[in-house]
Amino acid sequence: MKQLYAQAPVKTVSAGNGIEYAYRETGEGEVPLVLLMHFRGNLDNWDPALVDALAQDRRIIAFDNTGVGGSSGTTPSTVELMALDAIAFLDALGLARVDILGFSLGSFVAQEIALIRPSLVRRLVLASAAPQGAPGMHGWAKWVIDSVGEPEVIPAKVLDVFYARSTESRSAGEKAFGRMFTRTEFDAPTTWQTRQAQYDAVTAWGIPNTALLERVTTIQAPVFVANGDSDPMILPRYSHLLAGLIPDAEIKIYPDAAHGFLFQHHEEFAADVKDFLDRP
Amino acid sequence: MKQLYAQAPVKTVSAGNGIEYAYRETGEGEVPLVLLMHFRGNLDNWDPALVDALAQDRRIIAFDNTGVGGSSGTTPSTVELMALDAIAFLDALGLARVDILGFSLGSFVAQEIALIRPSLVRRLVLASAAPQGAPGMHGWAKWVIDSVGEPEVIPAKVLDVFYARSTESRSAGEKAFGRMFTRTEFDAPTTWQTRQAQYDAVTAWGIPNTALLERVTTIQAPVFVANGDSDPMILPRYSHLLAGLIPDAEIKIYPDAAHGFLFQHHEEFAADVKDFLDRP
Repeated sequence: MKQLYAQAPVKTVSAGNGIEYAYRETGEGEVPLVLLMHFRGNLDNWDPALVDALAQDRRIIAFDNTGVGGSSGTTPSTVELMALDAIAFLDALGLARVDILGFSLGSFVAQEIALIRPSLVRRLVLASAAPQGAPGMHGWAKWVIDSVGEPEVIPAKVLDVFYARSTESRSAGEKAFGRMFTRTEFDAPTTWQTRQAQYDAVTAWGIPNTALLERVTTIQAPVFVANGDSDPMILPRYSHLLAGLIPDAEIKIYPDAAHGFLFQHHEEFAADVKDFLDRP
Repeated sequence: MKQLYAQAPVKTVSAGNGIEYAYRETGEGEVPLVLLMHFRGNLDNWDPALVDALAQDRRIIAFDNTGVGGSSGTTPSTVELMALDAIAFLDALGLARVDILGFSLGSFVAQEIALIRPSLVRRLVLASAAPQGAPGMHGWAKWVIDSVGEPEVIPAKVLDVFYARSTESRSAGEKAFGRMFTRTEFDAPTTWQTRQAQYDAVTAWGIPNTALLERVTTIQAPVFVANGDSDPMILPRYSHLLAGLIPDAEIKIYPDAAHGFLFQHHEEFAADVKDFLDRP
């Protein structure tokens, strides 16, 4: 019987940087797909339906980066440091070559990993992504950070950011939340320190600097850029910008969807990711 | 009875820069749509089927820029000078506000017009377009410039660049060529001087410089970016890049089509342009 993500045990590994990382894995395969989480998310915030679909023909590894959820340490305030921490985790697992799916803040970290250690990355999936320095992206719109950035997170407000206004999208969002809560033993909640450090990193990433757009033009790995057509957090145009800068990138924009398009369209997205990762 | 583009008489106007411009117009409407032509093209290289479809509810103006086809003068070697010449032509016609459809090299000129004189431009359609300085775009691939850049243009080689490899796309290309030749009195052919100057301008536009990507971020006009999915001349990723930089841009990539996607898909493209230009 296959290991379901919602029932996967939490494992830990001690890395060379002194951090003890919490992670879960499911599925089997040669090159694992490593998941990099969004702002304030922990292991419980991956939609089990998506992870289980992805795990049908590959090994999936989800982890809490430094200072997040069940991992030790203090969350760093820059994307670069987060990338170095993620690399330390992968080194601790003895992984020399992985596919990476980075979601939102995780997509920033994924780009940075591909730039710092290109040999580590076989293929990249960048969901709700943007390149560093993209003009117009400096911090999130006030209503967006108000919805997801308060000390107490209110699910209805998170829905406003992660899902579109249509009944279909909202309903999909409620179902995704429901699936996340099928687990019985939850990860440690993310702290206010994590929230502050991560939003500093997100905001610094958006300081406009078109010269920095050149950075991702050296990414040689094939890249799949994906977003929802109504994402208010990372506007779809930054996904187009990113796909336009990376030499070997393809892009797909999912209809009637926002930041959480990959949970809303989990079947279609998992099939697209499989198609992309399996390409010769 | 409506004026068909293939039968529209050539008019001339003397501009303040001393150039006598050849142009044709068809259709009626308050804000005209001005067409900016591709590399080595003259008035005959607009597909009449596309122009007639666009002219159903607006005034369309096509013209030869300085030194091209039936217009006097010498073709300048920079996009900036081409834009200033186009502005001189529009000033000579007394037009203070226009929509612009720029195709390929014409899309570069259109961007430059929008940057030099924003008040002139209501809405922009950028077909097979790329922003100045886009990394990876320095000159066209050898087989592409060999196909369209020889002294004697061979239609079959132009087809290779303007249309995709499928039977459908090639057939659409042959039909578009056929429609262009339904005219009885042709424009003056473009010269070798025009070819050299225009390719110098195209090549200079592609000198990689990510800092220059910032230029189009100040375009306030709504923009519709469009391309074929298999364009070998201006890769679709430069269209994504451009749409990602412009604050109010939308993008559409047409299937099974190359540089001449707007002629191949002339009905669909004309409908999309109408929808975009008519938006309140």
